[in-house]
Amino acid sequence: MTVTGTLDDERYAHAALTYLAEPGDQRLGALVRACGAARTLAAIKAGSFPRGRSDERGSPAATRAMERWRVRLAELPPPEELARSCRAGIRLACPGDSEWPVRLDDLGDARPYALWLRGSADLRFSCLRSVAIVGSRAATAYGSYVASEFAASVATRGWAVISGGAYGVDAAAHRGALAAEGVTVAVLACGVDVPYPVGHADLLDAIAAQGVVASEWPPGRNATRLRFLIRNRVIAALASGTLVVEAAQRSGALNSARHARDLGRPLMAVPGPITSGLSAGCHMIVRDWQGMLVTSAAEIVEFLSPVAPVDAAGRAGAVLERDALGPDAAAVLDALPVRGGMGSSAIAVKAGLDMDTVIRSLGALAAGGFAERCDQGWRVRRA
Amino acid sequence: MTVTGTLDDERYAHAALTYLAEPGDQRLGALVRACGAARTLAAIKAGSFPRGRSDERGSPAATRAMERWRVRLAELPPPEELARSCRAGIRLACPGDSEWPVRLDDLGDARPYALWLRGSADLRFSCLRSVAIVGSRAATAYGSYVASEFAASVATRGWAVISGGAYGVDAAAHRGALAAEGVTVAVLACGVDVPYPVGHADLLDAIAAQGVVASEWPPGRNATRLRFLIRNRVIAALASGTLVVEAAQRSGALNSARHARDLGRPLMAVPGPITSGLSAGCHMIVRDWQGMLVTSAAEIVEFLSPVAPVDAAGRAGAVLERDALGPDAAAVLDALPVRGGMGSSAIAVKAGLDMDTVIRSLGALAAGGFAERCDQGWRVRRA
Repeated sequence: MTVTGTLDDERYAHAALTYLAEPGDQRLGALVRACGAARTLAAIKAGSFPRGRSDERGSPAATRAMERWRVRLAELPPPEELARSCRAGIRLACPGDSEWPVRLDDLGDARPYALWLRGSADLRFSCLRSVAIVGSRAATAYGSYVASEFAASVATRGWAVISGGAYGVDAAAHRGALAAEGVTVAVLACGVDVPYPVGHADLLDAIAAQGVVASEWPPGRNATRLRFLIRNRVIAALASGTLVVEAAQRSGALNSARHARDLGRPLMAVPGPITSGLSAGCHMIVRDWQGMLVTSAAEIVEFLSPVAPVDAAGRAGAVLERDALGPDAAAVLDALPVRGGMGSSAIAVKAGLDMDTVIRSLGALAAGGFAERCDQGWRVRRA
Repeated sequence: MTVTGTLDDERYAHAALTYLAEPGDQRLGALVRACGAARTLAAIKAGSFPRGRSDERGSPAATRAMERWRVRLAELPPPEELARSCRAGIRLACPGDSEWPVRLDDLGDARPYALWLRGSADLRFSCLRSVAIVGSRAATAYGSYVASEFAASVATRGWAVISGGAYGVDAAAHRGALAAEGVTVAVLACGVDVPYPVGHADLLDAIAAQGVVASEWPPGRNATRLRFLIRNRVIAALASGTLVVEAAQRSGALNSARHARDLGRPLMAVPGPITSGLSAGCHMIVRDWQGMLVTSAAEIVEFLSPVAPVDAAGRAGAVLERDALGPDAAAVLDALPVRGGMGSSAIAVKAGLDMDTVIRSLGALAAGGFAERCDQGWRVRRA
């Protein structure tokens, strides 16, 4: 799935749009949804709206939009160079790709044009059972403690932790998930190859090694204040639910929370002392936004878990149809024992797959509720 | 309203029942509600259920109840002695009395037989706008701080603070209200003349001087563990709403909260660190009992305030009909200016009443939403 010379026109166009336009441009999003990325890109290059969209032609706002999208045309790398410009380990997920999290489609016209990814985990599978843990950059010791404890605890239960890679609550959440050997997803407001903040270069590498770093911006782009806010909608849309650990009354974390609320996603907050300004936003979420007050990781998992029936094989709580698994994951699942456990190298032999594919598939199966770790290795997940 | 030799049969019987039976005895409460206190007392003395209740005669439970009520008959003071045994300053409020808080009738058969009172404030008026502030005896510095701050703040806004006179949150709440020169009500699980806990003798005297100390038990009775739990329903029933400041998972404060919930009264809780066991009960109230999460006194007042229309005189938020005022309070209200303000001695002259009556009436009028303090003294309360 790495970006190579084999990019088809549609995928190249999705990638190109991430270079041309800032994410969240709803006029562009509507155009892509109506006409596809390739026709949209061709229209931008031609400087006129595609047929069927010619009613846009007379609108001053549409004219300004077209000018805006054409500004960066000269910077757009050609297909071969775009492929080369991606360093090893960076890949692209476009709408419709097997790694594209379908939840992002809930964003409608504000859906990302594509996501750039760096890391070992499958983004779509990781997000199936995931919680966004967000909060203040200036977290107190209490906030950092709660974020890392909760992250570790939900990760141990097979839930991915999504956050923004920032200082404070974000970092504590990522670190907690990593410490529990869980999957964590950092959604950045800059290129996935840009170490921002600089002090988190090692953390972001660790996240990539064990989870995935994602961004709507192409490699090389820097973060800006506005981009953080635009990015927040993706964090909220990717996760099964959003937990705010600490947030002042007017903080960026409340922006993420608002997105979760507007998307109809479960919204949770951790209470704290009413004398702490950094808990004021959390209390507001509970009081005014009907957010769930959460005091333990178990409550998060219970709140977010779908009530899934147990199937004939005793597999409970799978959040995805088995038919929706890719061929590799299906082969690994077939190889898994129902009782006892099996090491990943034995699974690789039984499934006839290489180790990297087996390990990635196991993570995906765990996130999807199909497989679970046990003392003897891996097995089919039961109730 | 002091207990004197002029006690009529019905009021004497109510007082007598507080000597004979433990409060909350629902079989006795049902009997009193059906037949009146005097007939009930006569039946106990006779050892047989009153006519119309003769169906009770065959029931073993009813027989045991009758035995239970007759056990203390020998200790029952005769009317004259009962009157004498009440020291100066102790009075009785019976169902139907002008000082009887009608809210207590919501307790149904568990309604107190009568309330013994000590203090300057009118209990019924005080409770019209009141908040019960309860919580752990072993409050943290945080809990004590919040309890006293909130109590002072609601008291300043004319709300009475009701609590149980215990160490910890209770004491902090009473002290906060006293410091703000507000009205506070201590509902004890012992006689109103019993200084329990001993370390609170001065506090209880201060509450009596500025508010009122109330009990279902007659003077002289001591507190027991069971009596605290029985008492809690009265705290919840008296108040417009109940706020739990700090409570462990299995604490007496949750018992008060449960009564408030069961009575359909507004229930509130103060959040705290999830790492503090003393906030666990508060979080449970918000999460599982749909209690209101409260972070300021203003929120309490807003939550509990009835949405009352403004009448022709511009008087808003009165929680009682003007016709329900006693003659003294009505005379004081008539004497109050609508604009500016008037000192209490001037009001006494204008209303033709002694100062004690004027001060007590003003407190009652403030609690009822008819009068308010201002820089120049007192005036009619406006929107």
